[in-house]
Parts: sequence; C-alpha cells; structure tokens
Amino acid sequence: MTDTLSTIVAPEGSLEVLSQHEVERLRDTSGRGLHELLRRCALAVLNCGTPTDDSREVLETYRNFDIEVIQEDRGLRLKLDNAPAGAFVDGRMIRGIREHLSAVLRDIVYVANEIQNNDGFDLNSSHGITNAVFHILRNAGVLRAGASPNMVVCWGGHSISREEYDYSKSVGYQLGLRHKDICTGCGPGAMKGPMKGAHVAHAKQRFKGGRYLGISEPGIIAAEAPNPIVNELVIMPDIEKRLEAFLRVGHGIIVFPGGVGTTEEILYLLGVLLHPDNIDMPLPVVFTGPASSADYFRQVDAFIRTTLGEQAAQRYEIIIDDPEAVAKTLCHGIDKLTLFRRDNDDAFYFNWRLTIPLDFQSPFEPSHAAMAALNLSPDQPVHTLAANLRRAFSGIVAGNVKEQGIHAIEQHGPYKLHAPGELMTHLDELLKAFVVQQRMKLPGSHYEPCYALEG
Amino acid sequence: MTDTLSTIVAPEGSLEVLSQHEVERLRDTSGRGLHELLRRCALAVLNCGTPTDDSREVLETYRNFDIEVIQEDRGLRLKLDNAPAGAFVDGRMIRGIREHLSAVLRDIVYVANEIQNNDGFDLNSSHGITNAVFHILRNAGVLRAGASPNMVVCWGGHSISREEYDYSKSVGYQLGLRHKDICTGCGPGAMKGPMKGAHVAHAKQRFKGGRYLGISEPGIIAAEAPNPIVNELVIMPDIEKRLEAFLRVGHGIIVFPGGVGTTEEILYLLGVLLHPDNIDMPLPVVFTGPASSADYFRQVDAFIRTTLGEQAAQRYEIIIDDPEAVAKTLCHGIDKLTLFRRDNDDAFYFNWRLTIPLDFQSPFEPSHAAMAALNLSPDQPVHTLAANLRRAFSGIVAGNVKEQGIHAIEQHGPYKLHAPGELMTHLDELLKAFVVQQRMKLPGSHYEPCYALEG
Amino acid sequence: MTDTLSTIVAPEGSLEVLSQHEVERLRDTSGRGLHELLRRCALAVLNCGTPTDDSREVLETYRNFDIEVIQEDRGLRLKLDNAPAGAFVDGRMIRGIREHLSAVLRDIVYVANEIQNNDGFDLNSSHGITNAVFHILRNAGVLRAGASPNMVVCWGGHSISREEYDYSKSVGYQLGLRHKDICTGCGPGAMKGPMKGAHVAHAKQRFKGGRYLGISEPGIIAAEAPNPIVNELVIMPDIEKRLEAFLRVGHGIIVFPGGVGTTEEILYLLGVLLHPDNIDMPLPVVFTGPASSADYFRQVDAFIRTTLGEQAAQRYEIIIDDPEAVAKTLCHGIDKLTLFRRDNDDAFYFNWRLTIPLDFQSPFEPSHAAMAALNLSPDQPVHTLAANLRRAFSGIVAGNVKEQGIHAIEQHGPYKLHAPGELMTHLDELLKAFVVQQRMKLPGSHYEPCYALEG
Amino acid sequence: MTDTLSTIVAPEGSLEVLSQHEVERLRDTSGRGLHELLRRCALAVLNCGTPTDDSREVLETYRNFDIEVIQEDRGLRLKLDNAPAGAFVDGRMIRGIREHLSAVLRDIVYVANEIQNNDGFDLNSSHGITNAVFHILRNAGVLRAGASPNMVVCWGGHSISREEYDYSKSVGYQLGLRHKDICTGCGPGAMKGPMKGAHVAHAKQRFKGGRYLGISEPGIIAAEAPNPIVNELVIMPDIEKRLEAFLRVGHGIIVFPGGVGTTEEILYLLGVLLHPDNIDMPLPVVFTGPASSADYFRQVDAFIRTTLGEQAAQRYEIIIDDPEAVAKTLCHGIDKLTLFRRDNDDAFYFNWRLTIPLDFQSPFEPSHAAMAALNLSPDQPVHTLAANLRRAFSGIVAGNVKEQGIHAIEQHGPYKLHAPGELMTHLDELLKAFVVQQRMKLPGSHYEPCYALEG
Repeated sequence: MTDTLSTIVAPEGSLEVLSQHEVERLRDTSGRGLHELLRRCALAVLNCGTPTDDSREVLETYRNFDIEVIQEDRGLRLKLDNAPAGAFVDGRMIRGIREHLSAVLRDIVYVANEIQNNDGFDLNSSHGITNAVFHILRNAGVLRAGASPNMVVCWGGHSISREEYDYSKSVGYQLGLRHKDICTGCGPGAMKGPMKGAHVAHAKQRFKGGRYLGISEPGIIAAEAPNPIVNELVIMPDIEKRLEAFLRVGHGIIVFPGGVGTTEEILYLLGVLLHPDNIDMPLPVVFTGPASSADYFRQVDAFIRTTLGEQAAQRYEIIIDDPEAVAKTLCHGIDKLTLFRRDNDDAFYFNWRLTIPLDFQSPFEPSHAAMAALNLSPDQPVHTLAANLRRAFSGIVAGNVKEQGIHAIEQHGPYKLHAPGELMTHLDELLKAFVVQQRMKLPGSHYEPCYALEG
Repeated sequence: MTDTLSTIVAPEGSLEVLSQHEVERLRDTSGRGLHELLRRCALAVLNCGTPTDDSREVLETYRNFDIEVIQEDRGLRLKLDNAPAGAFVDGRMIRGIREHLSAVLRDIVYVANEIQNNDGFDLNSSHGITNAVFHILRNAGVLRAGASPNMVVCWGGHSISREEYDYSKSVGYQLGLRHKDICTGCGPGAMKGPMKGAHVAHAKQRFKGGRYLGISEPGIIAAEAPNPIVNELVIMPDIEKRLEAFLRVGHGIIVFPGGVGTTEEILYLLGVLLHPDNIDMPLPVVFTGPASSADYFRQVDAFIRTTLGEQAAQRYEIIIDDPEAVAKTLCHGIDKLTLFRRDNDDAFYFNWRLTIPLDFQSPFEPSHAAMAALNLSPDQPVHTLAANLRRAFSGIVAGNVKEQGIHAIEQHGPYKLHAPGELMTHLDELLKAFVVQQRMKLPGSHYEPCYALEG
Repeated sequence: MTDTLSTIVAPEGSLEVLSQHEVERLRDTSGRGLHELLRRCALAVLNCGTPTDDSREVLETYRNFDIEVIQEDRGLRLKLDNAPAGAFVDGRMIRGIREHLSAVLRDIVYVANEIQNNDGFDLNSSHGITNAVFHILRNAGVLRAGASPNMVVCWGGHSISREEYDYSKSVGYQLGLRHKDICTGCGPGAMKGPMKGAHVAHAKQRFKGGRYLGISEPGIIAAEAPNPIVNELVIMPDIEKRLEAFLRVGHGIIVFPGGVGTTEEILYLLGVLLHPDNIDMPLPVVFTGPASSADYFRQVDAFIRTTLGEQAAQRYEIIIDDPEAVAKTLCHGIDKLTLFRRDNDDAFYFNWRLTIPLDFQSPFEPSHAAMAALNLSPDQPVHTLAANLRRAFSGIVAGNVKEQGIHAIEQHGPYKLHAPGELMTHLDELLKAFVVQQRMKLPGSHYEPCYALEG
Repeated sequence: MTDTLSTIVAPEGSLEVLSQHEVERLRDTSGRGLHELLRRCALAVLNCGTPTDDSREVLETYRNFDIEVIQEDRGLRLKLDNAPAGAFVDGRMIRGIREHLSAVLRDIVYVANEIQNNDGFDLNSSHGITNAVFHILRNAGVLRAGASPNMVVCWGGHSISREEYDYSKSVGYQLGLRHKDICTGCGPGAMKGPMKGAHVAHAKQRFKGGRYLGISEPGIIAAEAPNPIVNELVIMPDIEKRLEAFLRVGHGIIVFPGGVGTTEEILYLLGVLLHPDNIDMPLPVVFTGPASSADYFRQVDAFIRTTLGEQAAQRYEIIIDDPEAVAKTLCHGIDKLTLFRRDNDDAFYFNWRLTIPLDFQSPFEPSHAAMAALNLSPDQPVHTLAANLRRAFSGIVAGNVKEQGIHAIEQHGPYKLHAPGELMTHLDELLKAFVVQQRMKLPGSHYEPCYALEG
C-alpha cells in the first residue's frame, strides 16, 4: 500500500491571495474548471521524491489524491487528501515543496484567467504567443530588471549514468563558483545535477540569491517532478511555450547527454538559431559530458551535420570532460551577449530580439495522424525541417512518458514516422543508440519503442 | 519662471519590467494611448512639494513637462523634460518620488491592459467592479496574506488649521505606537499628519515594516499629490473605486475635520454601512479633532442625523481632543473585527463580505446635467439618498479642485443642485460653514462657490 | 503620585548574552558592583518622555525604581520595579527604549570588565585613552568598515526656543535628504531636532540604514535622556571620552545655539583643532541657527576671537537661516575630508590621525577646589587655555544639571572661577546672556547661577 | 612547482575594524608578535582544497606564503604573497575563504589581546578557563540568545571510506530536514559530510539561517582545513578549549567512525559525563555508521565498557545504518534537553551547568616525557582515567598530523605509553584496527605508528 498523508497546508511564497472567482475556478471539477489540472500538477510536485518517469503510473498510484483550495482569515490553505508521504518530514510538508505547490497555483490561475480568457492576447500570432510567454514569466517573478546576464540553461537526459550525473554536478559547481544561475526543465538526471553543483558553489561564495529555475509544463511535470532545490518554478501551458521560455530567459545553453527530449530541445534551439533573422544573435551553446560520452556526442554531431548542415554545427561547441573549460566558455560567451544587448538597448531579462517562427511556437498535438503526416523530407528550408523534426521527437517523448501519449500508443500501436532515404537511416541509428544506452526510460525498466520508422 | 529639470531616471520598486506592447501604449500620444494619462499622473507625483490644490494650475505651470518611457538593458528608464525641481535634491530625484512614479506606471499599465481590455471583468456589475478593485490592489502588492488586521484609514481635509494638523499627527503617533498602519487619500493636511505621526512612533517601536498607504485616482492626484513618506501608492481608475478600496482594505476608519471631500467620504461610508446586508459588519469608525473642532463635529453629526437618521449615527463615535482614546477605541474595534473575520473565515486583507450596492460603485460624471438631475428627496431608501448625496458632494469636489470640473464651472457657471425643503437648509448651512472655515480651498486663496442650491 | 509600572522585559539588539561573572557584577550592590550605575542609567533611559533636565529630581522621583538582571533559557531578562510608565504603551515597553536598556547594559559591562579591569589599557596615557575610546565604540558596533564618511555631529542646547528647534529640524532634514547620518549627545532640543528632520528625509529617500547615534555618559544621561528615535546609543565612561568619541567618529560638526554645555563642546573642538599637529586636518564645522539667533552667534564668535584668537575663528563658518546652505557646506567639507583620508589610507570610521592632547582627555572632576584652581590666564599656549576654559564650562554644566554637581553647590555654594582682566569681562557677558536667554535650564524653571567669577 | 597567487583582499564578515595596536601585533614578526600564528592559520584556511592531512607538508609546500595586514580608508586589507591558487576562482578569492580568513584574524586578535593579556581571566582555574571559552565564542558571534536548542555536534574521522562519507551525508540530510544545525571540527570526511547533507536539506526547507559551525585550533587547522561551506569558524587557542567549546554549545552529539582523534573526543565526552555532577545532565549521544561499520562500533563499544565501565556505555546509543532513526533520536533527546534547560533557567546557547574538571581543561603538551608519564592504571577514579586516556590519544593525534608532533617523533622516535595488563591489550587491538582500516592517515599514504605500547 502506498504511504500517504492527509493534511492542510499554507502555500508559501507566491500566490497566497486569490479572488473569490479564482478560488471558484480552482474548485470547479467540471470540464471548464481547473480542478483536475491543479490536482495533476500538485500531485507531480508532491511526488518529487519517487524515482519514476511514468506519468500514468504516478496518477494511478495516487488515484485517491485530492486537493482543495480553502479560504481562511490569513489567506489560502490547501487541503490535501492522500498526498505522497515523501513530501513530508515528521508530518510537516517540506517548505520547498510548499513553495512549488504555490507556484503551481499561481501559474494555473494566471494562465486560465489572464491569458486564455483575455482578448488582449492573440495566441494565434507569433507576437501574441511571445507576449503570453513574457506575461507568464513576469507574473512568476522570473524577469528581474537590474541583474546582469547570468542564467545558464542546462538540458540533458533525466535518465543518465552516475558518471554523467556527477559530471553535470561538476559543471554546475564551476558555473556556481562564477556566480552563474541555473535553469533546467526540472526533474532528475542532467536537470538536477547542475543545480546541486551550483548550490554548493554558491554556498562557498556566500551567494545568497542563487537561482535554480525550473520551467515545466503540465504534460511533463509528473514525469519530471521538480527537485525541491528548485527555488523558482514556472509551469508554462505547453511544451512549445516552455521551449520558448528557455530561449527568452537563458543567456547561455549547455547540453548534457540525453535522449529524445534532449534531441527535441537541440532541434528547437538550432532550428531557431538557423532562422536568417538570428544569424548574428550571440548565444553560447556547449555540448558536454564526461570522457565516456565522447561517442555519444560524435553521433549527435553527425546527425546534426547530416540533417541540418554544417551551418548548424557552427552554433555549438563540444567540450569533453572539462567542467572548468565549459564554465569559462559560457562566461566568455555571456560577456559577448551582454555587450550585444547593451549596444542594442535590449533587455537582459528577456530576449525580445530573437525571432521564433510560428511553426516552432504553435502547439503540436502528437496524434498518430499528426505524426504520420510530418514532412521530414530534405526538400524544404532547413529551419522548417528542424521544426518538423522537433515535432517528431516531441511525439516520441509523449509516447514514452506523458500520460496521453502512453495511452494513445496502447490503443493504436506505435507512431508511424515517414522519413525519406538517408534521414531514415540516421534517425534509426540515433534512436537505436538511445535505446541501447538506456536513455529512453529510467534504467531497470524495459523499453518498448513507441515509434516505427517508415521510408 | 518655474524651476525645472530634465533628466533620465530609473523607476524603483514596482514595475521595472514592461512588455514591448505595454511600452508602446505608454508612448502612444493618440487618444487611444496612455501617454497623456501618464504625463498628468507623473507630473502630480513630481509636484508633491508645492502647496497648491488646483489641478489646472499645476498642469498649466508645467505645460512643458513631458515623460517618455525608454527601454534599456537593465530595464526601463524614464526620460523627464522640464520636471518640477522640487522632486530633486542636488540633481538626483528623491527616491520616494521615484517609487511613486513607478507605482503610477504600474497602475496605468495594469488598468489599461489587464482590466479595461479584459472581457473577464464585467465592469457593469457590482461583483465585476469589486473584482477589478481586488485585482488592482493585488497587483499593487497591497493585499498581504498573513498579516493581522491593522490598517487604519484616515480621512479629513487637505485644508485644515495648524492645530488640526498637529492633532492628526498626535493621533497617528498613538496609532503608530500600537503598530497600526495608516491609509489615506494622499495629499496634505489630514492625509499627511497621521502618517507623519505614525512614522515617528514606528521608529520608536523599531517597526520597520510600517505601511503608509496612499490611494488616489487620476482626477484628484494633482490636487492631492502623495507625500513622499507614502511608501505604497495605488492609483485607482476613478473616485468610486478609490472609495471602495478604502472600505475593502481598511480595518478601521478615522475622520478628521475636512470639507466637501471628507463629507463625500462620510456619506459613502455611512450609506454602505446602512445597507441591510452590512448591519452586523464590525468596523470601528471615529470622528475626531482637537477641542477647537468640537463645533464642527456637532454640525456634521446634526447633518447626518437629519439626513440619514439616528441609525447612521450609531455607526460612529465622536471623540474630541484625546488621541490616546482614539487609538485605543480603534484597537478595540479592530480586535472585534479580527474575531469576526476569523469566525467567518473571511480574509483579513480584503473585505469581500461587505455589500457595496452598484449605485455607490458606478462612476458618476458630474456634468451640469447630472448634478441638476440628482434626486435628493427624502422619499427614498436612506442608503439610496446617501448615494445621491455622495454624488452631489463628489461634484462639488470636482468643481473645486479637479481640472475638468474647474473648466466646466468656468464655462457654464455653478452646478445647480435641487434639494427639497429641510435638506436644502441643512446642506446650505454645512457648505457655508465649510466656506467660512476655509475648508473648501487652501487658506489664502479666494473661494467662489461652484454650486448653487435650489429648492 | 508618580505613574510607574513593574514588569519583566527582554533586552533587544545588543547584549543579550552575558557570562555568569558579568551578571554577578551587575547584580552586585556593593560599592565594587555595577548595580547602582546600571540602575541610574537604566532609569534615565526609561524616563525619556519626561521634560526635565535635573538629574537629581529624576532619581528622587523614582527612588523606588529598581532593576535586576535575570538569566533565562533564551537569554537575559530585566526585572523592573516601579519603572516610569511613559516607557510603556498599553503595558509593553517601547522597543526603542528596550534597545537603549540593552545598550546601557552592554556598555556598563564592557567598560567595567574589558576596559577598567584590563591591564592592556593604560588609561593614564593619551594613546591608551584613545584606544579605550576605540574599543568601546567598536564593541558598541558604531565603527563600520566599508561605509563612506557621512556622520554629522550636531551640538547645541537642550533648552532652546521653538524656532531654534524647528530650525534644527530643517537642517537635519536637508542633511537627511543628502543621506547623511546624525550624531548628537542625546537629549531634547538641538540634540533631538536634527534627528527628527533627518528621519523624515531618510524615509522620503527610502534610506533604511539611517543612523541616529547618541553618545552619552552616566553623569549627563539623566538630564539628557536619549529620545527613542536614537537607534544607536553608546554610554562612554565620562564626559572627556564622550567628547573624544564625537571627534573620532564625526565627519563634520554643526553647532546650534546652546548654553554652557555647547560652549564646553566648542572649546574642546577648537582647542583640539588649534593643536599644531592638527593644523591641516580637514573637518567641516558650521555654527548655525535661525535669523533670530544671529546675535547669539555674533557674541559666541566674539568670545572665541578674543580668547582663542583669530586662528580659532578660521576653523568654523557661521551660516544664518539657511538649512540647505548648511547641508551643502557640510557635504562639500566631507568630500574634502574623504579625499584626505583616502590619500592617507586613514580609516573612515575612526579618526586615528587627530591629536588630542592629554589635558583634553584626562577626566576633570569639578570639585570646588579644582574649579578655583583653574588657570584661565592668557599667558599660556592657546590650546592649553582652551583646555582649561573647557574644564570651567564643564564644571558649570555639572553644577547646573548633574547630580553630584547640584549636591556640591548646595553644600558649598557656587564654584569660584578666577579669570584675569579682560577674559573675566567676556566670560561674564557670555554667561549672563545664557541666563537671560534661558539657555541654562529648561524654560519655566528658575535659574540660580552655580558659579561666581572672580578676578 | 606549486600553483600560487599574490593579491590583496578585503576580509569579510567578522573583524574588519582593528585598532592600530592590534594591527601592530599582527605585523610583529618577533616571538612576542602574532605574525607567525596568523601566517600558519591563514595558510591552512587558504589551503582548504588540497587533500592532505600533514600540517608540516602544507607549511613546507607554501614556505614562501606570507600575509600582511594593511589599513585602508574603508577598513583592513590583507596582502597575500604566494597563496595557494585553489582558494581563488579566476583570480578572485572564494568568499567563504575570505570569511574564514577574517575569522582567523578575529580570533587571533581577541585571544591575544583580550584573553591572554587580561588579568580578568584566571586561566589556571576551571571557572576562568570556562569563562575564556565563553568570551571567545561570544566574540565570534556563536552564542545566540533567542534560538532554540538545535546544534548537533558531529565527530568522526577525517579519513573514512566513501561509504562512511555518504552515510554521514545522509545523517546530515535527515538532521537538516528537521532544521538542525551542524557543528564539527572542520576538515574533510565525517566533518564535512554532515554539513553537506544538512546544506541540501536546509535548501529544500528554505532554511536560510542554517549554521555550519567549525571549531578548530591552531595546531590542527592545517591538517583539517575548514571546508568553505563552514559559515561560522572559530579558532580556539588549544585542543582542550576546542573540546570544551563542543560540549558547551552542542545540544546533541553524533559520533561517526573515526580514528585516534575521534577516540580522544569520545574519551573527553564520556569522562566529563561520568563526573558525578553531570549524572543527570541530559545530552543525546549517538554512535552511528553504515552497515559496514557495525564491527568498528562493536570494538569501540567493547573498549569503552572495559576501560570506563558499563556506566559509560549508558550515555550513548549505537544505531547502525539508519539515518532517519539517528535524526529522530537526536531530536527527541534535544527536546528533553530543552525542557531541562527551561526548568533550570539555563541558557540554551551555552551549557554553564556542565562540570568540566580542571584535568580535562588544562592544556596537555604531548612531549615524550609527558606521554611516558601518563598514568593509565585502572586504580584511579574512572573519570581521571578517562582524562589520562584522552591525553594519550591526543598525543597520538599530534604525532600523526600536527607539525610539532611529527617533528618530535622524527627526532626521538615513537612515544612510549605505559599501560598495565589488560588495558594494554585492548588499546593495542584498537590502535592496530585503526591502522588496518586506514583511519590513522588519509588512504594512500603509508602509516608508521608514532607510539609504542609498553606494559
């Protein structure tokens, strides 16, 4: 039997003041209400201690979990039923988790009431989507005027080897010694290591304001629950806005070894940077891992060069087994970015200038039909190909760990992807390597591919 | 020649992060844009040192003043041309004023983009207006979960005698010694005295978080510029939402001697409290002044009893020349209010439970026609009469000090008010007394009545 | 009957951790113990609300007052019997006063145990005394590395006119707007006004760390109780170390109108500055007051020129009725001092370089014999004459307001001072003017001179 | 060649304000001066990154290192020549290390000037020594009134296995989740693990004020340099005062596996607790380690029971491989201690009530003669035997890692210890086990025993 606990807690740190209308929407269990969304995200946050990456399993295990928002004299309280016991110490909820709960509340309420309900935001236009991303981040307190650029986005797999994990800690440590903040997608593995390393370094530097920013979305949060060390959590409405948020707030990007999710991120990043408008946009990007991951990066590098061309390979540097060099490269690149922003009077806290085409921004729903319809032919502009490849990988992530995706695969079998000739081969090799290296799912679990490649 | 200064300053403390769209609207000098509103409110805030209560004079004196929002790497900057020199010390703007500028920006942007542009708010319904008031206050950071009730709203004239001013300081001092915060409508006189007194007392109590909350609106702010000691400033969109804000956030109310503005406030307060829904709502209300103001309060008390009845007089206590007794009465009343809120799980920071009828909430535009059409007959429910009387006094305030009102009076002569029989007499006496006691305008200026009473 | 209160309070902010030995000494009511000293200083601090300058009267009024230090689990508590009720609001001690009590404890314990008991300090040498002053100030947390020079010492009478008081507030306000801190000798009048003014200005500038430093000594504290707005209080062991502390920590000095105490301070200051070693030492000194005090300063100026010579008059500037000019002059002078300290690698927080001769440092006990023996003849180096004149005025202060002095005068009649020829005349005129202007004692009380001048 | 760096840094956080006399003593390179002591301790602090436990090697490697205190306008600066490069990141010293340097300065100055120079402290009496310990800790800011008991002292070896280290982290983590602070003797191994674990847990609990208190002494600090995560560092004058400090400030004690130093600590602790005065003194003591250390603790337990008797074994609990149980046991014990202190009005921050006999307090100089003269016979009171055994182990520590000890062993061969019959056997077994388990020196280095047991 699962160990659970029922209690009432006060949220902490973000949104303790809600209007009556907002409370009502959170309580509304009808389809129009927000209750189910709140319940799922809250459960994900509370379940951060459990080593699983299967969203559906989490929801199944804690199917009796419930959350209710209640109003009291000093503000809101959250009534929890059958909450995962790991969120508590001697019956009291860990405060970091309380803060995450509060962040979940804040973002769900804001997105539903101020973004989706508001005619002011045209969510079908590129500018309107960017504006929504800006407002969600500002409302979350993530955008800070006055601070110099120092936010390093770290991508990489949730399922990596101990050696790769320790390496990601070392890189975080070297970044932290240089007063850099860390942003990741939450979750374990390469998303946790850099924060842990930076946290120790920040302590040594007595850097009290160190930021460990986690950017998630409702579909993935259950599979990649935020570690309580994350001290700023934002729940973007979908994966596309999450990816845009990374690029708008990050001042440098590090890619650690990973699987399909990481590849999705790489394709998004390079696709955007390959857009002609962004040709001169400075942004340091480093692919890095321990010595043992040299082969892995060689393969990824080859895949990029073949599919997106040599130009794409210009936008990143591969550094193997040298955390200090990674940190110094990032620092150097951020210095250049800082000068560029200053010269252009661009904000430090949000990269307005970056062009992100609408086909990277529009939410992609990975149905079997949509996956099968993806045009992966080389006969299209390279950043359009990148956009479609990104969608393909996004679909595989969903099939692997997201609730809806797992469900669809069970019903209809693997997604069918149509890739012509050469690309087919490269894609097949890359995906097979991920399976062999156990980058698809957490080690120990058996992996059954959720995709089939067709010519 | 007027002493002015041109410079660029950084806003401070509130909204330093704006979207491109928001910046554009602030720069838009067309009728749809916000530039003129920003210019007027900013000027009012910058002109806080000058002893005037004539909005039009302020705008005329600084007609060359301009403000421009510019985006820089670390956030916004404000470019000021020909700004009042009194806002600066040795060329640097006083930081409190910088914060007020920032508050002005914040509220103008929020109201225009998130309230008026947003279908989510039904500004024609009572609940919708209350919701808007809530959101504006929450966005301004005024609503704080966790704190115990301690916000005392102080009303009274901007044009009062030295003795009355010193008395209002003493009351503020006694409240401050008891860790009470002060909320007023900004401006000089009875709106400044209690804050000054509380500020000294808070220092003696080492009460670092003392709040001096000023709630203004664009029409009045030039006449009642916020003293820089105000450390939280909110610009509500109109006088009705400003009055609602006082009642929703205040935990007790003190009325010092004042003129027509103060009478408007009294009528609003008593009218609302007389609504049947609010019959058991605890809220301490004290009318107070030095010994010399005993007559004044006798007259006000008589006017209330005659027009609104004995029941209205049950809702306040008159205390003459005893600051400590005033403070203790407030504390006692707030203790009772605290218990009531706790018993009902009502929020401490916003009085949702108070019923404010729509006729108190709907913006009243005091045109000559509207003023002439006011029904001041006793043959109506007492809280409806109070609502109309409130509108009459609101119009006189506009004719005295607001730009549009002064302009209208110049063009069309005094407002005509139709008051039947007895009310006519009482109203006439009260208004004449205000003139004689120099409560209409700042002493030294000649007062020409902007109203005429007709049977 | 006097209004008193008995209670137990926790000290706040300074020394809440005492050793058992230290507690024992504070409890020791024998001659060797510190209990009586603690009792007197504590009473002075608690009695800050009462307008009196007669130490003996204070001690007499509260002769039943007692204080006991007790040890509890979380630290010390102070048991108070029959404490002045004015220190409390609704039965709870004002926190500023609690902090002052704690400062009294801290300094009494430190001076007795670490200075007077410690062979390391040679209190008979100039260097040893300076070292003791340094250690007491450091232990009190007054010396802050890192801060730029901005401490303005304000001297002037405790018994001044309302106009002079308001003027001193205006000067403090102008200093505060310029982020200057204020140091005075505690007490009312010119020692309170500048702090009040600066406090308001600091609030407008949102200058949270504003320092209101009061430096007192056990003999004078009952006559000049610290206003609770003082947020750093130091009790130096005697008047000479108090005067030295002013000069070592101050970065500029303002003299408001005052009586014999102020004259003592002027003589000390000018005597020290006239020492050949200090000839190039930058230190801005301004004598200032409202228009009505122009005559007063003319007289003081004349007295200085006659007794100490024109050279002494070079060290100060007289500015009448212009608070802004005073503040700007101080700021300018402090800028020069800052450069000088920087050029010489001198500490900002303690003026080690200033030579203070031993005859200004040695404690002067104003017995009748010592006063009569003072050599006030012009046939001596001017800074030695200044030292002796300083002692003469110090004696008159004691005869006016200190307990021992008042007692001695009652027993033996007025002090006899021997002043030759011309000095006699000037001294007589100056003192008579102080009497007429009610600068000797608080207005309303009859003043009986405690001195007689003899040729 | 060793990597070094020469620079000037500002101290941080403790003592930035020194008197001229104090600076002179720190600069004094004669035997009476403090320069050499400062140089050694500063070097130890700077060398924290290097994995060595050989004090002499450190001093030899950096024989060209020098430090000079210089006075500048904003306070002190430290001029460093040939400092270990590991203390710097990109040429700037890690701030935690800067704070440690400052702590070193603070304690050296205080002990030399205020303790050793001050007749007020009788360092030959038990009470005088305790008083000195109190003053040094108070001056270091370690004693905090107001806080509840939560300081857990963790002892254990600097040379432990990876598994033991990870276990000590887990225990620290469980303590940190329960808001406990950690105090150790600085250095690596079991002195670092619990702090690291607690640090992560504190971050998850958003416990900003977490304390990582390191208590060292000049003889050991080079061998056990403080990890920069230590945010409060105190340098006690000798090992005996260091041990006393642990017992006076700790509210619970955990012993991890260790070698002779840990055994010295156990003997000190049990010896003191066995004193009749301390029979009822509550203090939770837990011996703990991972499953693999079960044998180790069985041996230690047996040694204690044989030498100090069953009564000694009553004072601790052995918990194997259960970090959560350890944390809960400590919390429970601390709750009892809290009640005891409260009942007795004992301070939370310093255990005055604990009797520590003079033979545990008097500094023991482990010369060959002194070691040979130690009476280890069972025919003496058990706490006297404990005191002598403690001295024996203290001597072995010195011979292993302290500079003077290593030197003496080189010159005169191993210390000779006379232990009668049975004790001889037990001692021999214990020490041999330490050698085999590599607990004497860091793994990898060859260990040559510095002692010889004789009957």
